[in-house]
Amino acid sequence: MRNDKINKNKIVNDPVHGFISINYPLIFDIIEHPYFQRLRGIKQLGLTYLVYPGANHSRLQHALGAMHLLDTAIDTLRSKGFVISEEEAEAACAAILLHDIGHGPFSHTLENTIVPGVSHESISLAFIRSLNEEFNGRLSLALEIFEDRYHRKFLHQLISGQLDMDRMDYLKRDSFFSGVVEGSISTERIIKMLNVVDDNLVVEAKGIYSIENFLIARRLMYWQVYLHKTVVAAEQTLVKLLQRAKQLVRSGFPMNISAPLLYFFAHDVTGDDFFTPQSKALSYFALLDDSDIMVAAKDWMNCSDPVLAKLSSMIINRRLLSIELATIPSSSSRLAELKGLFSSAFPNFTEYTDYFVFSDSVGISAYQPGEESIQILHSNGQLVDIAEASDILKSNALSNETKKYFTCFPKELREILR
Amino acid sequence: MRNDKINKNKIVNDPVHGFISINYPLIFDIIEHPYFQRLRGIKQLGLTYLVYPGANHSRLQHALGAMHLLDTAIDTLRSKGFVISEEEAEAACAAILLHDIGHGPFSHTLENTIVPGVSHESISLAFIRSLNEEFNGRLSLALEIFEDRYHRKFLHQLISGQLDMDRMDYLKRDSFFSGVVEGSISTERIIKMLNVVDDNLVVEAKGIYSIENFLIARRLMYWQVYLHKTVVAAEQTLVKLLQRAKQLVRSGFPMNISAPLLYFFAHDVTGDDFFTPQSKALSYFALLDDSDIMVAAKDWMNCSDPVLAKLSSMIINRRLLSIELATIPSSSSRLAELKGLFSSAFPNFTEYTDYFVFSDSVGISAYQPGEESIQILHSNGQLVDIAEASDILKSNALSNETKKYFTCFPKELREILR
Amino acid sequence: MRNDKINKNKIVNDPVHGFISINYPLIFDIIEHPYFQRLRGIKQLGLTYLVYPGANHSRLQHALGAMHLLDTAIDTLRSKGFVISEEEAEAACAAILLHDIGHGPFSHTLENTIVPGVSHESISLAFIRSLNEEFNGRLSLALEIFEDRYHRKFLHQLISGQLDMDRMDYLKRDSFFSGVVEGSISTERIIKMLNVVDDNLVVEAKGIYSIENFLIARRLMYWQVYLHKTVVAAEQTLVKLLQRAKQLVRSGFPMNISAPLLYFFAHDVTGDDFFTPQSKALSYFALLDDSDIMVAAKDWMNCSDPVLAKLSSMIINRRLLSIELATIPSSSSRLAELKGLFSSAFPNFTEYTDYFVFSDSVGISAYQPGEESIQILHSNGQLVDIAEASDILKSNALSNETKKYFTCFPKELREILR
Amino acid sequence: MRNDKINKNKIVNDPVHGFISINYPLIFDIIEHPYFQRLRGIKQLGLTYLVYPGANHSRLQHALGAMHLLDTAIDTLRSKGFVISEEEAEAACAAILLHDIGHGPFSHTLENTIVPGVSHESISLAFIRSLNEEFNGRLSLALEIFEDRYHRKFLHQLISGQLDMDRMDYLKRDSFFSGVVEGSISTERIIKMLNVVDDNLVVEAKGIYSIENFLIARRLMYWQVYLHKTVVAAEQTLVKLLQRAKQLVRSGFPMNISAPLLYFFAHDVTGDDFFTPQSKALSYFALLDDSDIMVAAKDWMNCSDPVLAKLSSMIINRRLLSIELATIPSSSSRLAELKGLFSSAFPNFTEYTDYFVFSDSVGISAYQPGEESIQILHSNGQLVDIAEASDILKSNALSNETKKYFTCFPKELREILR
Repeated sequence: MRNDKINKNKIVNDPVHGFISINYPLIFDIIEHPYFQRLRGIKQLGLTYLVYPGANHSRLQHALGAMHLLDTAIDTLRSKGFVISEEEAEAACAAILLHDIGHGPFSHTLENTIVPGVSHESISLAFIRSLNEEFNGRLSLALEIFEDRYHRKFLHQLISGQLDMDRMDYLKRDSFFSGVVEGSISTERIIKMLNVVDDNLVVEAKGIYSIENFLIARRLMYWQVYLHKTVVAAEQTLVKLLQRAKQLVRSGFPMNISAPLLYFFAHDVTGDDFFTPQSKALSYFALLDDSDIMVAAKDWMNCSDPVLAKLSSMIINRRLLSIELATIPSSSSRLAELKGLFSSAFPNFTEYTDYFVFSDSVGISAYQPGEESIQILHSNGQLVDIAEASDILKSNALSNETKKYFTCFPKELREILR
Repeated sequence: MRNDKINKNKIVNDPVHGFISINYPLIFDIIEHPYFQRLRGIKQLGLTYLVYPGANHSRLQHALGAMHLLDTAIDTLRSKGFVISEEEAEAACAAILLHDIGHGPFSHTLENTIVPGVSHESISLAFIRSLNEEFNGRLSLALEIFEDRYHRKFLHQLISGQLDMDRMDYLKRDSFFSGVVEGSISTERIIKMLNVVDDNLVVEAKGIYSIENFLIARRLMYWQVYLHKTVVAAEQTLVKLLQRAKQLVRSGFPMNISAPLLYFFAHDVTGDDFFTPQSKALSYFALLDDSDIMVAAKDWMNCSDPVLAKLSSMIINRRLLSIELATIPSSSSRLAELKGLFSSAFPNFTEYTDYFVFSDSVGISAYQPGEESIQILHSNGQLVDIAEASDILKSNALSNETKKYFTCFPKELREILR
Repeated sequence: MRNDKINKNKIVNDPVHGFISINYPLIFDIIEHPYFQRLRGIKQLGLTYLVYPGANHSRLQHALGAMHLLDTAIDTLRSKGFVISEEEAEAACAAILLHDIGHGPFSHTLENTIVPGVSHESISLAFIRSLNEEFNGRLSLALEIFEDRYHRKFLHQLISGQLDMDRMDYLKRDSFFSGVVEGSISTERIIKMLNVVDDNLVVEAKGIYSIENFLIARRLMYWQVYLHKTVVAAEQTLVKLLQRAKQLVRSGFPMNISAPLLYFFAHDVTGDDFFTPQSKALSYFALLDDSDIMVAAKDWMNCSDPVLAKLSSMIINRRLLSIELATIPSSSSRLAELKGLFSSAFPNFTEYTDYFVFSDSVGISAYQPGEESIQILHSNGQLVDIAEASDILKSNALSNETKKYFTCFPKELREILR
Repeated sequence: MRNDKINKNKIVNDPVHGFISINYPLIFDIIEHPYFQRLRGIKQLGLTYLVYPGANHSRLQHALGAMHLLDTAIDTLRSKGFVISEEEAEAACAAILLHDIGHGPFSHTLENTIVPGVSHESISLAFIRSLNEEFNGRLSLALEIFEDRYHRKFLHQLISGQLDMDRMDYLKRDSFFSGVVEGSISTERIIKMLNVVDDNLVVEAKGIYSIENFLIARRLMYWQVYLHKTVVAAEQTLVKLLQRAKQLVRSGFPMNISAPLLYFFAHDVTGDDFFTPQSKALSYFALLDDSDIMVAAKDWMNCSDPVLAKLSSMIINRRLLSIELATIPSSSSRLAELKGLFSSAFPNFTEYTDYFVFSDSVGISAYQPGEESIQILHSNGQLVDIAEASDILKSNALSNETKKYFTCFPKELREILR
């Protein structure tokens, strides 16, 4: 029956890449596992759908897409004469399929509120180890590659690096679903230009313009989509909301929320907790997705805590905080002024001002030269860092981290400000 | 401040149609309303994403898309000399934006389990009337058009009819997000071919091949996507799951589910209940979306009722029932055989056999000639029903209802059957 | 140096299918040959660009695209367990690459005027045989497949049959370049559904809706594009123009046209002439493309023969004949009336009336059941003709030949007719 | 009858932008004119189709596309409150439709060989003036805008400037047809961001990333497509071919080529010659397109002049010169070495070495700050040059002219060089 199922379901329809083939039984078994199925319930771009209504795509789609690109990259490298065994190919596919399995609800947003101090990479590792036990060691090579312990480093670099298939897929996919068409890249051309030198992934020289385009597109997607000011405002509001909920849970405030969410609010979970045998943290985490948060927030809209109620309603009804973005930090006097205005306008909320008026920064670096750099392979065999090889990257504009500072406050203050 | 917001947000990025403009303050106010924002949480295609992982698009996207096409259609008709006032255009846009606002979680799936006997159209009407009160009558003309009480019938037909903008958008959108590219249609060409004769919407003769293509594409999408056998199996499992949950709630079984869901499980809500002043049914319904069901099902996986636990796990972990499709009904002996096998295989579940082994039918009719037919306008002014005008529709193949019969049963029985 | 070139050029960018790989040295050598390069100068859709300005794509692009799809189909069949040797794959690719190499300028339009009585298939065969000699027999297996002499018939069917890769490519490509998006098909899905039974190409049952869609799309493309009334008018005008030019050449009228064109006007070339050693017909044909006709027609606009001048100007300046399409033949009295009007309006042209006023028919049959039918493979191994298996094809609407009758006449007569 | 035709043909199908509407009778009359129809025969990208086989699109398509974008831009500006009269809109559309009408065969390639010293802009002006006479002055306002004599400068800037609709269309179109998808830009978003300050075209601040993307995409298209080394080699070969042909014509060598081509080879045509009444230069030029060159080159393959024969065969059979690209000029000793090798390898061609071995440079500047700069409009009304406002443009990498040096020589020399 297993074989029968494999035969029947080995092709998945993907609007971005077309048909995705599932080429190994191990891959099929991973996809069938509840750990992986959970990713259907987690949006790739968190609350971005509040600005780009098409951006409802799930982490499951992205994981399948990244695996498909990796498959294609392996085909390309094989066609250039590199021997990559079936075992290596299967393990690399498994590793990329699972590379983001440790993401929690709304992806990056909640890393710091639900399990503060524990990265999603670390939880991914816990999941993969747990699966490896269940699968009797069939994921051991995948783990080696994932943890960069395998001697053929390019396999790890295809999964995690400056040119990994993760980025290739998410840029193309996020551009597709958000409708920001100019963020699209030619994954096909970049992959065709990949090569390997001394076990490191490099790009052939005539792919240089595609790489420039990829880095610029990534930058555009950051400012236009990932760090769109309304998206930032929404995510910050959600962070504040969950901080408040956690505080209330710990103070004994009764809540009608799902058991997994309650667990993480009530306990101080550490990274190690995910790696214990029969880890409770892991099994609760394995049940958590976006819906837990949404159902909780809908309920909280009518709860007796005014902060929780107000913040929930802001998310659910899309009445987000105002946000100001700038290239320099907001002055402390400006923040004080806004806080003062808030107290006057909402006297009952004075003690909760920090939930509604605050400032911080967001930033990206499109490309970091250095150890893990993108190397360009010239036809004479010479390797050059792209920051050297490219006219526009030479200037370091892309590699300098670009930071923006933001200040959030309720929209009502804006009227007063006029 | 309102004006300021309108100015800033009047363009929405849509991966299907490009930029969607919001041209009227009323439309902006509807979109901002919590009733409309709720549609972000309802997938347009219910559980279809279990087969087509890209199909995560929401009812909100579809409503915006349909409104955009209506805007385009009005432009086309105006360019052909028909006078359509700004008030009429705004009202028609409002009506189509709200036409599906009465959909519950997972769209069509739950009409018969959550509020049996109450159609989503009827709930849409309740929502629109409630909004009209809140908006002090600004939706009155939209209501006239929605209910087909307005004398310019083509405005209603653009919203609901054989060639309405609802269908135009959902076919194109569902094809786009599922990745079933061959279901795509040329909404642009069809809209350019629209005309009005005696207040009725008609299609100019040279659009006949596009209309044929539209009807065939619709048929393809039905069988390939909407009624894909795995989708049907998933939806049937969900129906059984909710029937069981409702039964348990009513027998006093304690449940940790959201308040709105509990309300509909515990009460016999009728259509009239949605139209009472301060309707409790309406306000609870306004809080209900897909997430309530998903969170409940995740919780039920560990509950003490074995039927609820098993059905929940089937949905959450995508271990669906097997399904057989046929053009004739399953024989009663076949069903009895399967039920017998089930009892032997799962003796503890014998009394719950009907939750796991059952049969029924699904069907579509791509085009119904008759009163609400598609009329083709020849250049000499003559009107002909498309079933007459088209070679392939002449045969009635498309207009005859096509029915398929299905039988569902646990996958485990398949092994025994061999 | 050859190897070096192969390495450098083995990927071609195609806007329709993405990257096309050239996987065999033989394929590379064919593409490099002047016979194949000639196809750059022949538009796939003849004069269709006069109606759809995007339809400038060449026969070379189509040939590469069809080869690419064939490559994909062979991969699919191999993945289903059919052993196809590298020699067979290479030969099949060569055969499809060359299947249309015998087309003359403006593709189908001129088969009956430049070399009347000689089909393009026959000229293709002459080209392939000539190449095979030049290539020392490396095309022998390709020839066997092309001529359907090879025992594995499905290889021929992939090149020429109801489901051949030729049609797959041209439908998708013509839809793409004309902008008639609704003519698009899912070549990817259809190819995934191919299978082989008893050496015959068949389609798995769940591909049935894609096949229906393919047949309907083909029908749509026929009426909307290939037989668009303005396209028919343009092609008929061109036929008349070349008939006139040929007549004049033979009557000794001096002409400043290219040597290859002159050769075919001046000589009665038969099919056999293409197969003689060092065939002059073949080498002249190998130099002929659309540009010869266009340059001649531009020159003729100023020539002393009024018929040639007028017809040339109609093509070059896009002042085409009026055309009426109908489902029944034009009555002889109608034609006589138009001819009478013509004589009155253009008394100097009376003796040339048949060049400007004439009627004929065009038609298609989207699908012919019978010997070369599309067979559907059910999961139980049963084969059924698609005309049986499909609801809409059952009706024979698609398989009945659909004919349309046309009458052409100068636009000026239309004013008089009013 | 004219009205009737306008009604019937006022929509054109474009694979890039969808439907293009022809909104003004003047536009219809221009499109119908033989001058404009000629553009069907001129490929937008010259010989680029030898590298990107999809790049067969014509100048006519591009002109229609640019006009369509201009129409959209005018709609956008009107929606922002700028009054643009119907006369101004019609004139601007006419001007952009005609802005490139002076291009000769293979676009840019031949400016310097067929009519040396005369720019295509100057010939465009001659065509527009000639049409204006024929149209009794209906193009006077279009001429004012075209020549930048009209006081509302933004209308001229929409036609010719850093952000003109010409570039918008050609980048998107060339990306589409070449299949270099990553060269695509969001014309839709850029146009939505346009504004006017003091009669100058500016871009609103939130469009800054789209503008960066547009400039980077333009750069990518230059190196990947327009100045692709094989394209440069082809164009240089064609230039040499035509120089040789011209020389031979002037030395009395008999040639079977079209009358218009012969005219330009035989005469020293100056810019002024296009502006004389009943200009012979203009009327011959109006008959010249790509086909004249192709037919001539096919004929020359068999001519007695070995240089002409060899160069022709290189173009027609795509056996192009080898080309080396570098960021510094080729040393004179390298060139001398290659010339020496050539003489030894082809002793009979020694005196013609410069036709086969030569070097030169190509270059672009993606963006020139200065007088005609792209101004960014901040929400506070401040205007900033994009080179100031953008992180990546700040570096001047894009604005510095980037030059590449090339050396061409026959492929055969490469073998000897090893």
